This record gives sequence, structure tokens and C-alpha cells, in this order.
Amino acid sequence: MSAGFQTKRFVEFADTDMAGIAHFTAFFRYMESAEHELLRHLGLSVFMEGQEGPISLPRVSVRCDYQSPVTCEDVLDIEVTVVRVGEKSVTYEFNFAKDGEPIAVGQVTCVCCRVGKGTAPTSIPIPADVAAKLRAMVTSGDAEAASDA
Amino acid sequence: MSAGFQTKRFVEFADTDMAGIAHFTAFFRYMESAEHELLRHLGLSVFMEGQEGPISLPRVSVRCDYQSPVTCEDVLDIEVTVVRVGEKSVTYEFNFAKDGEPIAVGQVTCVCCRVGKGTAPTSIPIPADVAAKLRAMVTSGDAEAASDA
Amino acid sequence: MSAGFQTKRFVEFADTDMAGIAHFTAFFRYMESAEHELLRHLGLSVFMEGQEGPISLPRVSVRCDYQSPVTCEDVLDIEVTVVRVGEKSVTYEFNFAKDGEPIAVGQVTCVCCRVGKGTAPTSIPIPADVAAKLRAMVTSGDAEAASDA
Amino acid sequence: MSAGFQTKRFVEFADTDMAGIAHFTAFFRYMESAEHELLRHLGLSVFMEGQEGPISLPRVSVRCDYQSPVTCEDVLDIEVTVVRVGEKSVTYEFNFAKDGEPIAVGQVTCVCCRVGKGTAPTSIPIPADVAAKLRAMVTSGDAEAASDA
Repeated sequence: MSAGFQTKRFVEFADTDMAGIAHFTAFFRYMESAEHELLRHLGLSVFMEGQEGPISLPRVSVRCDYQSPVTCEDVLDIEVTVVRVGEKSVTYEFNFAKDGEPIAVGQVTCVCCRVGKGTAPTSIPIPADVAAKLRAMVTSGDAEAASDA
Repeated sequence: MSAGFQTKRFVEFADTDMAGIAHFTAFFRYMESAEHELLRHLGLSVFMEGQEGPISLPRVSVRCDYQSPVTCEDVLDIEVTVVRVGEKSVTYEFNFAKDGEPIAVGQVTCVCCRVGKGTAPTSIPIPADVAAKLRAMVTSGDAEAASDA
Repeated sequence: MSAGFQTKRFVEFADTDMAGIAHFTAFFRYMESAEHELLRHLGLSVFMEGQEGPISLPRVSVRCDYQSPVTCEDVLDIEVTVVRVGEKSVTYEFNFAKDGEPIAVGQVTCVCCRVGKGTAPTSIPIPADVAAKLRAMVTSGDAEAASDA
Repeated sequence: MSAGFQTKRFVEFADTDMAGIAHFTAFFRYMESAEHELLRHLGLSVFMEGQEGPISLPRVSVRCDYQSPVTCEDVLDIEVTVVRVGEKSVTYEFNFAKDGEPIAVGQVTCVCCRVGKGTAPTSIPIPADVAAKLRAMVTSGDAEAASDA
């Protein structure tokens, strides 16, 4: 039984490199797009307005482990799981598969920040309604135990 | 005798595609970087402040003709020529060569715009000092005859 | 009445630049993907096998004229028109629109080449069945008059 | 005292996104280029020929932790450290800094593979001369203790 958000991604010619496979960086773009698709699915957006100006969720830590290469015209099944929602951060896991075979596993941690013109991003607590929607996606039972980031 | 601005570009692995050559879009990134390098060489910047806010030079027309492919670890010689400076626009030509052999020829036309938060870019005359520096790079004699964009 | 092939494209966050809009190079990736989608629609493929080895259609000339910027989460309507099929080349036109408003117009000319390991691509006539399918997409009446590339 | 390989990287306009900073994926391209520069510095190449055909070092695990954003025209100092050379794998660490301030830390693990036309990559021991050159770059004393990957 899978509890994550499911989406698909078509591997394009421009995603490939001279080794004949999708360049490893393509997976990070696929993760970002899948994450944004999940946010829209939850009625949220990449662009959020907080009480004191725009809020953004820049990545602070990302990783990807590659099991098998893919190439142009392959279709990837992507499962996005919200693995942890802290006071200020959220961590997603991405499972990539093709025809049921594992392709790659990625993880992305974002920190909620107030962003403004000309000032450095400042981390702030995730707005309560956003956090609630993300927490509802957490599949394991330890979301409440997640510590601050 | 060449009157253009000269620079070089190293073709990286990530620029290649599964055909084993630099993807055709890479040349447009090379052109943009070479253009910005020319601007810095002239004491200008990608980011300019006008009297009524920030000024930008978005591209309105670009093209590239490809003669011969290049691949990872190739070094491209790029000659940037300012071919035309109008009241509001500037057109560059880029000649790419490798070991003296022609590789590609590109052309980019930018229009000077006032850009602001939340409003569409509005075309404005190129600031006089910027136009003067760009005109000094025009190699043919018809800069004065260039019509408005 | 429109006779072109219709597809859509979602503008992703990673396609944008610090000007807040889709980077101009993104449109060339959109064109390539739309072209490949058209090929699949016609029962063709990016990867074709000729009698004497693999055949490819590298681009020899591309251009794009930009009318209005787009940004993250915009949906582009793309109409692909086959404007010319020569003995060895094919030219596509791409019309980008958003909510009915014109965004950009691009054009791409590819040349049919035999490609092989370690040798430079050699232009060859487009295989008859491929040419026939592409010609059937030509909307104007002058396909037969198209000269060799 | 630093024992790693030092290089620099200029952040280009096309590397930025609409948040006004270098997109997080750009760092992975910077890492790959810096790694390839190190290989050339060691007299090696991205493209190696083994006794039984071409050898490649595809990435199996990559990660990056971001401390501070950078933007267009910033110059990054990159220190590449070979942290581990196993029988079949090599792990690099990349420290990014700007004006002495830490920007990001990345890690990449590659596995030595025999690659061939139409077959899946098969992991093989790193050729002895390549391994020796990489081991000579390992700064800590535990290279010999590194286990197989």
C-alpha cells in the first residue's frame, strides 16, 4: 500500500547527455516539479503570501541515489512522500520507478523563509494552514515528533 | 582583420545530449554569457539602474545557424560583434569557431525596457552613455542609420 | 481554421530566470519536445533506423521571436506547423500562445543525416515514408515546390 | 591548510531562477565540471578506454547542503577533495565559498563502469593507474581502508 502522491514524468531528449542517458541533474528538476504539483494538489502554491510579505521554501539539503539509468521517451512514475514536517522545514522523499523497477530515490528538505527585495531570506515558522495540509500527507506517525529545523 | 570582442567557451559534459554533441540550446547560453562579458568589458552590467528604476534588455529575436557539431571538452572561440544600435534596441552577432573552423553563427536582438515589480516591461530609449559605448563597438559604418526598434 | 498539430506546455519554476520570466532558451526546449511529440503522433520517432544505419535530424537553423513573457505555472498552447519538406530537410514553425494571446513564434530547420560512431553526420534524403507523413502535415500548397536543403 | 584541488566558477544569468538566485541544480553542474577539471589536472579524462572498451564513472549518489544563496556575476571558490577511493568507486566532496564565506557543501560518489553500445553499464574495478592518481589526492589517511563500492 502506498500513501504518497503519484505523478509521472516523460524523459525528454534535452534531458539526456552524451552517455545516452538522462543527466543526473534532471532528476532534481523532476523532483522540484513533482513537489510543486503536490503543492497545487493540496491547494497551495509555490508562491505564498504571508502576513509580512512573500514566503518561499528554498531547499537547504537535497540528495539522490541512482539505481538504474533512463533515457529519452522513458516514462517515470514518481511517488512523492512528505516524510517530515518541522516547525520551519519540510522534507520530501521521491521514489522514481519505470515499469515497476526502481530507478532512483531522492530527498529534499526545504525551509520556510520570508523573502524580500534586497534582504537575505529569514527562516520563519511554516504558516499553520500550510503545515496542516503537509502534515496530513505524512505517512508515518511521527510527524508530531519532528523537531524544528 | 576582426573588430569584434573575443572570448572563449569550454563545452561541458552537461551541455551534451545523447547524440554525443553539444545540445543546440547550449549555444544560446554561450551567446548570453558572451554578451554579458562584453557588457562588463565596456564597464556596463546586466543590471542597470535608470532614472525611473531598473533597466533590462530582454531578447526579442534570436537565431542560430549551425555548421558543425562540437562536443565535451571542445574549446570554442567566440567573436561578438555589435551589428546595430537603434534608439531602443541592440543587435549582436556571434561567430563560433573551433581551431579556425566555423561552428555556428548566432544573432540576438534585445530591446531596452524599464522593468518593475508587477508591471509588464515597457520599451524605452537606451540610456545615452550605454548607447554610446555599444555604438563604439559597431564595426560597420551604418550605426547612425539604424532605425528605431 | 488551424491545420497544425496542437500541444500544451506547462512552464516550470526551473525554466525561469532572475528576471522572473521563462528564460528565452526554454522556448527551444519546448519546440524540440513539441516536434518530437508530433513525430510520435505520426508514428515516427526521434530515433530512426535507415538501411545503412541510424538516421537523425539535427537542427541546422533555429530562431525565435518573443512577443510577451511568460512565467512559472503558465500554460502555453503550442501549434506546430510543418512549413516545408525538402529532399533532405524539414522546417517547422511553432506558435506559442497563452489564453489566446500570442507569446512567441519559433522556426526550426532540421536536415536528415546518417549518423554513425566516430564519423561526421552526412546529409541524406529523408526516407520516403517519413517524408510522406511530414508532407501530409504541410498546410500550404507549396510542399512539392520546396527545394532541396 | 587545505589539500584539495582549487577552482573557480562564475555564476551566469542562465543559472538563476525567479527567486533571484542560482537554481539549486546549478551546483551539481558546477560539481561535475570541477570534477572533470580535477581529472584533467591529473592527466585523466572523462573519457577513458579500458582493455575491454570504454570506461565511464556514472554517479550513484549525490547530495548538496546549501548555506547561503548566490546570484548572477558571483564568483564561487570551489575546493574539490577526494574523500574516498574504493575498489570500484570514488567519492568527492565539494566546498563552495564566496569571499571566504561558506555557500554550499556537496558530495558525489561515482562507480567505475564498463559501458557499451546497447548493454547496461557493469561495475568494474577502477583501473590501477587511475586509482593511484585519485588516491594520491585523498587528504585523510584512510584511503587504504576504504571498502569496495
